[in-house]
Amino acid sequence: MFPVHKLSLLLLLSASILLTVAASAQYRRLAPPAKFSPELTRQILQVEHAALSSDYAYRQVAHLSENIGPRLTGSAQAAKAVEYVAEELRKLGLDVKTEPVMVPHWVRGAETASLVSWPGMADGTQQKIIVTALGGSVATPPDGVTAEVVVVDNFDELAALGDKVKGKIVFFNAKYDKRLAEIGIGEAAYGSAVVYRAIGASAAAKLGAVATVIRSVGSADYRLPHTGAMIYQADAPKIPAGAVTAEDAETIAHLATQGAVKMHLTLTPQTLPDLQSYNVVADLKGSEHPEQVVIVSGHLDSWDLGTGAIDDGAGVAVAMETANVLKQLKLTPKRTIRVIAWMNEENGGRGSAGYLAAHRSEVANHVAAIESDLGAGHPAGFAMHISQPAADMLAPFQGLLSDSGAILLRNGSDAPGADISPLDTAGVPTFGNWQDSRTYFHYHHTPADTLDKIVPRELQENAAAMAALAWTIANLPEALPHNPVAGR
Amino acid sequence: MFPVHKLSLLLLLSASILLTVAASAQYRRLAPPAKFSPELTRQILQVEHAALSSDYAYRQVAHLSENIGPRLTGSAQAAKAVEYVAEELRKLGLDVKTEPVMVPHWVRGAETASLVSWPGMADGTQQKIIVTALGGSVATPPDGVTAEVVVVDNFDELAALGDKVKGKIVFFNAKYDKRLAEIGIGEAAYGSAVVYRAIGASAAAKLGAVATVIRSVGSADYRLPHTGAMIYQADAPKIPAGAVTAEDAETIAHLATQGAVKMHLTLTPQTLPDLQSYNVVADLKGSEHPEQVVIVSGHLDSWDLGTGAIDDGAGVAVAMETANVLKQLKLTPKRTIRVIAWMNEENGGRGSAGYLAAHRSEVANHVAAIESDLGAGHPAGFAMHISQPAADMLAPFQGLLSDSGAILLRNGSDAPGADISPLDTAGVPTFGNWQDSRTYFHYHHTPADTLDKIVPRELQENAAAMAALAWTIANLPEALPHNPVAGR
Repeated sequence: MFPVHKLSLLLLLSASILLTVAASAQYRRLAPPAKFSPELTRQILQVEHAALSSDYAYRQVAHLSENIGPRLTGSAQAAKAVEYVAEELRKLGLDVKTEPVMVPHWVRGAETASLVSWPGMADGTQQKIIVTALGGSVATPPDGVTAEVVVVDNFDELAALGDKVKGKIVFFNAKYDKRLAEIGIGEAAYGSAVVYRAIGASAAAKLGAVATVIRSVGSADYRLPHTGAMIYQADAPKIPAGAVTAEDAETIAHLATQGAVKMHLTLTPQTLPDLQSYNVVADLKGSEHPEQVVIVSGHLDSWDLGTGAIDDGAGVAVAMETANVLKQLKLTPKRTIRVIAWMNEENGGRGSAGYLAAHRSEVANHVAAIESDLGAGHPAGFAMHISQPAADMLAPFQGLLSDSGAILLRNGSDAPGADISPLDTAGVPTFGNWQDSRTYFHYHHTPADTLDKIVPRELQENAAAMAALAWTIANLPEALPHNPVAGR
Repeated sequence: MFPVHKLSLLLLLSASILLTVAASAQYRRLAPPAKFSPELTRQILQVEHAALSSDYAYRQVAHLSENIGPRLTGSAQAAKAVEYVAEELRKLGLDVKTEPVMVPHWVRGAETASLVSWPGMADGTQQKIIVTALGGSVATPPDGVTAEVVVVDNFDELAALGDKVKGKIVFFNAKYDKRLAEIGIGEAAYGSAVVYRAIGASAAAKLGAVATVIRSVGSADYRLPHTGAMIYQADAPKIPAGAVTAEDAETIAHLATQGAVKMHLTLTPQTLPDLQSYNVVADLKGSEHPEQVVIVSGHLDSWDLGTGAIDDGAGVAVAMETANVLKQLKLTPKRTIRVIAWMNEENGGRGSAGYLAAHRSEVANHVAAIESDLGAGHPAGFAMHISQPAADMLAPFQGLLSDSGAILLRNGSDAPGADISPLDTAGVPTFGNWQDSRTYFHYHHTPADTLDKIVPRELQENAAAMAALAWTIANLPEALPHNPVAGR
C-alpha cells in the first residue's frame, strides 16, 4: 500500500498535516436510527457468518504465499499467480477475464554493504551493514562504490550541507514513529517517513551525491530492511538507492558523531523492458442491474523479499472469499460483484491505471470499489471516501457486523486503497478494510511478510466484512451516488 | 550463554525435567531477620547508587559493539576487544593481565539456501530460504548440495525413519516455546530446543543424511536466523549444519505435507588452526585478604551475525563498572575483586577452562564468581548455586537493592553462567545476574543483537546489582564457604 505514484500528493503535505488528517478521521455515527430491510439485514448476516466459518480465504493466501511465493511484478511467480487466481475463480463459476496491462520489470540483484572505515575500528576489519535496494533503483558498478557517509535527518539538513555532499553517500536517517503505530495510526508514521524513500535519491543527486541509503521505513527492531518503491525526478542524475535497517542506521549515525565513516555499497538491480501482465477480473453477474458493478479487490503482486502474505495476498484472498461464500449460499446479487486481483500495485500502479483506461466508458456504472490492503488484522470496519448521501444510505451498516468486529465506518477525503485510487479520482465511492495495523509496519516490505503473520480467524473476519459490505452495496434499493468530482 | 560444552548434561535431562528445575527455583527468603553491619549496608547502597548514576558501563558496551563490532573468537575484532578492555581497566588503575588461551578459529562463509522443487511451484522459480551456518559446521561443496528435505520434529521421528533419510537433508523442526519466554523462563524453552542444534547433525549423519538444518532456536517472528554452536560426535560422519528462520521452517513443513520438497543448500564456513587469544584478568587488590578473590565477569567474544551487545558486551561492561565505581568512590574491598572478560564462551569455552587450569592451585581462595550473561534487562536479583551456610550469610542482601530492582536471590543446583561453570564444578559459589529475559531470545545469536536493544537505565541497574553483590561478598566478615564437591 501507499504506492509511489501517490507521493506527489504526499509531498504537498507536511508531516503535521498528515497527522492531523489521520487524527480527525470521522468516527461519529452517521445516522443511527435508519435500518435496512429485514431481508437485506438477514442476508448480510448470513453472508458474514458464512465467511466467518469458511477456510477458503486462508487456503488461497496460503497457496499464493507458500506455493507460489514472492510475486514481484514481471516475475514468473506473478504470472503464475494470475493463472492460479483466474482458474480458482473460474472453478467458482465466475465470468473471468485476464485483462492485459504493460508493466515495469525491475529485478533485484546483489545487495551488500559494509563500513570500511570508522573511528576505533580494528585494523583490517569491516562492519557488515544490512541493506536492500529500493524498487526502481539503478545499480552501482558491479564491484560497488566506496564513499564517506553524510548523515541527514531531513531535507533541510541536506540543503544546508549543499555541495558538501558531493562525491558522498547521503544517508537519510528519518525515523518512523513507532508510537503512532502502537496507537493504531501506523499509516501516518509511514506517510511522514516514506518521502525520503520516494525522492531522497534525486534530492541528494542534485547536490552531487554518488548514492543514497535511507533508514528503513517501518517499525520493529529485528535488523530487517524494508524495501519499497522510489522514483527518479527528471532533472536529477539517477544514483543508486538502498534502505538499511534501523539498527544499522543507529550504528552509522552513532559512529558518524565520532568521525568519518566510509561505506562500501553494492546494489546491482536491473530494469528490464516492460512486459505484459494482467489484472484478474471476475464477475458474479447481478440479477437486476448486471451493468452496475461493485468491486471487491486486493493486489496480486508483492515485493520480492517476503512472500507477500499480508501485502497483499490477504487482500486477494478475502476478495475471492466474497465470491466463494455467495456461491456457497447460492445468493445472486442484484448488481454485479466484480472480484479484481490487481497487478503492479507496489511499483507502478499500472494495473489500476490500465483498468480505468480500459473501463472509462463504464465508470458511471461502477457503484463502489472496495480494497483490502492493510494486512489481515482484526477489522474495525471500513475507511471510505463517499458523499454524505451515500454515507446516509449506508448508515445502517454500522454496528451490524458485531460478530466480525467490523462495526465502524470512517469517512475520509482520499481513496482508502492505492488500486482503487484511480476510480476514486473518477468519483467512484471507495472503501478500504480498516484493520488493526499495529504490527503491519513491522513486516511491511520485509522478508518477514509471510503466511504465519496471518491469524486465520482474523482473516475470516476481514473476509466477512468485505463480503457483507459488497453484498449490502450490491443489493441496496438504489445505487450509491458517486462523489462530486472537481471540474466535472 | 548455554554453551555447547554443557550439552552433555542437558542431554541427560528430558525437556520435562528441565522445566521442572526451572519452575522449582527457590524464591523463598532465606533468613529475613539477619542484617549486615550498618557500615557494610551503607557501603552497599553507596556502591549501588554510584553505579545507577554512571554512564561508564554503557560507554563500554557501546564501544565494544559499535566501534569494534562482532567479536567471534579468533577474529581481529576479538583481539582488538582484548586490547581495549585491558587498556580501559589499566586506566582505572587495576592490575591487569591478559592470560593466554588457545582457542578455536571458525569463520563463516557463504550461506544461502533455496527450495528448487515443491508442489505448486511456478516453473523455473526458486524460493529463497534464509539460513545461517551453525558454529563449528563443516562446509558443503562450494556449489552446494541439492537434496530432498525430510522433516522431523524430534529424535524419535528421526529414528522411526531410519535409512529413509539416506541422501536427504534432515530438517529438525523443534519449536522454541515462546510462551515460556513470555512468562520469564525463556532459558527453559531454549534448553529443550537447543539439543537439536547441538547434536542433530551427528544423529542425522549416522543414518546417511547429507546435511541438516534446524528451526532457529529462539522466539520472535522476524525471519531471523539464530546461529549457535554445534558439536560433531566422534562416531558419525561430519555433515553441514545450518539453521533456518521460523518462517522458513513453517513454509518447508507446510509444503512437505503436500509432496516432495527439494532444497539447495550452500554453506562454506572454514575451521582454521587454533590460535592464541586471551582472557582479560584485572585485579582491584583486597586490603585485608588480597589472596581471596571475588570474580565479576562477562564474556568478550560474541557471535558474528550481530554486534554482541546483549550477548555479552553488556556482561563485560557491567563487570568493568564494578571496578569503575569502586575507584570513583575510593573504596578498597577487603578481598580482591577480579574483573574477568572471558574469551570463547560461545564456541568452545576455552577461556573459562583455561582459567581454571591456570589457577587451579588458587581455587580454594576463590570466594565467589559472578557472571552476567543473560542480556541487560531489568534485574530481579541473582540466580546462584551456593551452599545453605553461604546462603544464610547472604540473606540480608535480599530486598536491599530496591532502587535497582535486584532484590531476590534464587538458589539452584547448577552454575548460573557458562564461564563460571568450571569454577562451580570445583566448588566455588557462583552467581548470575537474573534479568528480565522475556525478549532476550528474540535477539540471541542473531543479526539483531545490537546496541539499541540495551536500555541504558536497565544496564545501570545490572551494573549496580553486580557491583553491590561483589562489594558485599568481598567485605563479609567471613569468606563464603565453598559448595560441597562430589568425590572430594
